[in-house]
Amino acid sequence: MTVKDYEKTESYMLSCMNDSAHDKEHVYRVLYYALEIAKQEPDVDYEILITSCLLHDIGRKEQFENPGLCHARVGGDKAYAFLVGAGWTQERALRVKQAVAAHRYRSDNPPESIEAKILFDADKLDVTGAVGIARTLLYKGKMGQPLYTLQSDGSVSDGMEDEEESFFREYRRKLENLYSRFFTKRGEELAKERREAAAAFYRDMLEEVRTAYQGKELLKDVLGNH
Amino acid sequence: MTVKDYEKTESYMLSCMNDSAHDKEHVYRVLYYALEIAKQEPDVDYEILITSCLLHDIGRKEQFENPGLCHARVGGDKAYAFLVGAGWTQERALRVKQAVAAHRYRSDNPPESIEAKILFDADKLDVTGAVGIARTLLYKGKMGQPLYTLQSDGSVSDGMEDEEESFFREYRRKLENLYSRFFTKRGEELAKERREAAAAFYRDMLEEVRTAYQGKELLKDVLGNH
Repeated sequence: MTVKDYEKTESYMLSCMNDSAHDKEHVYRVLYYALEIAKQEPDVDYEILITSCLLHDIGRKEQFENPGLCHARVGGDKAYAFLVGAGWTQERALRVKQAVAAHRYRSDNPPESIEAKILFDADKLDVTGAVGIARTLLYKGKMGQPLYTLQSDGSVSDGMEDEEESFFREYRRKLENLYSRFFTKRGEELAKERREAAAAFYRDMLEEVRTAYQGKELLKDVLGNH
Repeated sequence: MTVKDYEKTESYMLSCMNDSAHDKEHVYRVLYYALEIAKQEPDVDYEILITSCLLHDIGRKEQFENPGLCHARVGGDKAYAFLVGAGWTQERALRVKQAVAAHRYRSDNPPESIEAKILFDADKLDVTGAVGIARTLLYKGKMGQPLYTLQSDGSVSDGMEDEEESFFREYRRKLENLYSRFFTKRGEELAKERREAAAAFYRDMLEEVRTAYQGKELLKDVLGNH
């Protein structure tokens, strides 16, 4: 892969990006994580890997505008069309398409090639640790979702049993369970190094909020006098 | 203050709220912090304090729609009109108006009454700790701002010298400097208990991102061969 080819694909990626939680910096982080993971894997085709990383989220805008669409599938189709148009063979463009389409986990379409597995792990890595917390909160802000919900007795829910969307729910139901679902050894190692930063943030925040809500008893005391 | 009066003011507050970062849960946290702080202050008028807390952010929508407006000033005016309409004396409604108007720091309008000082501290407390980090990230997501920016050499900026808006900039320029600016002893104590949670998150995230960007060198190595 030449610098010129890289820059051509990068320009196309940038033209497809628009939101902040899945913005271009996410794409570069995924690319860099992927290169770190690839160091420990044999027989990686770097052109397929780098191109798949750059283009993995180019279907985000379509999914945001039409939530019925899957951004991985749309992105795979867009990547294929772009690459064939740029002179790639159909066989190699298809390998990128398959990696992009499989980066969002669905049981009927798991990542199969080593490049697809590395992209999958690199993308998941960006939902771990403090960065994963930050990206989740950006998304909740964009969607206008709350940090937590209250239980029927008025206490703060830890998120686990919530039906309504919230940051605590996302942490308990998704973020904290990611760490064993990696395809590569290096991906799993990197994720585990980041795990405690996310767990500590959730614990600290839950404690702060629950401490705050103890003030509810003080309110009852004040209003109870009248 | 009767439960009925509380609920009347609470209903008005809820009718004025719409966004997630400054949503109603923020209002309740501020109210509860305020009651905790008030325990250590003599001569607090609880009706003034509770009403000021409930109504402190009711001018947010106006400021969001017209950024030239100050939500504290607008909120103070709205609170005064609501309370006089609800049968409060002008003198007592004015005390709420002044507390609401002074909750956002401006050197020409500092909080003067004890209720205004407690509200100010309670509101600032919600920008400290893990909750402060979470609320800041929700806001960045809503506004489409990035987590960090890159320096001219392509490395990740720590936020301190940034000109462009970002989460790291907000942390270094605002969040990390809040802790000595409290009016009440209890407010300052509570803030200090929460300080390390915020600092740890920033440190963890900066380290994760800077580690990720080391992959840039790997990219150069791969592309450098062609």
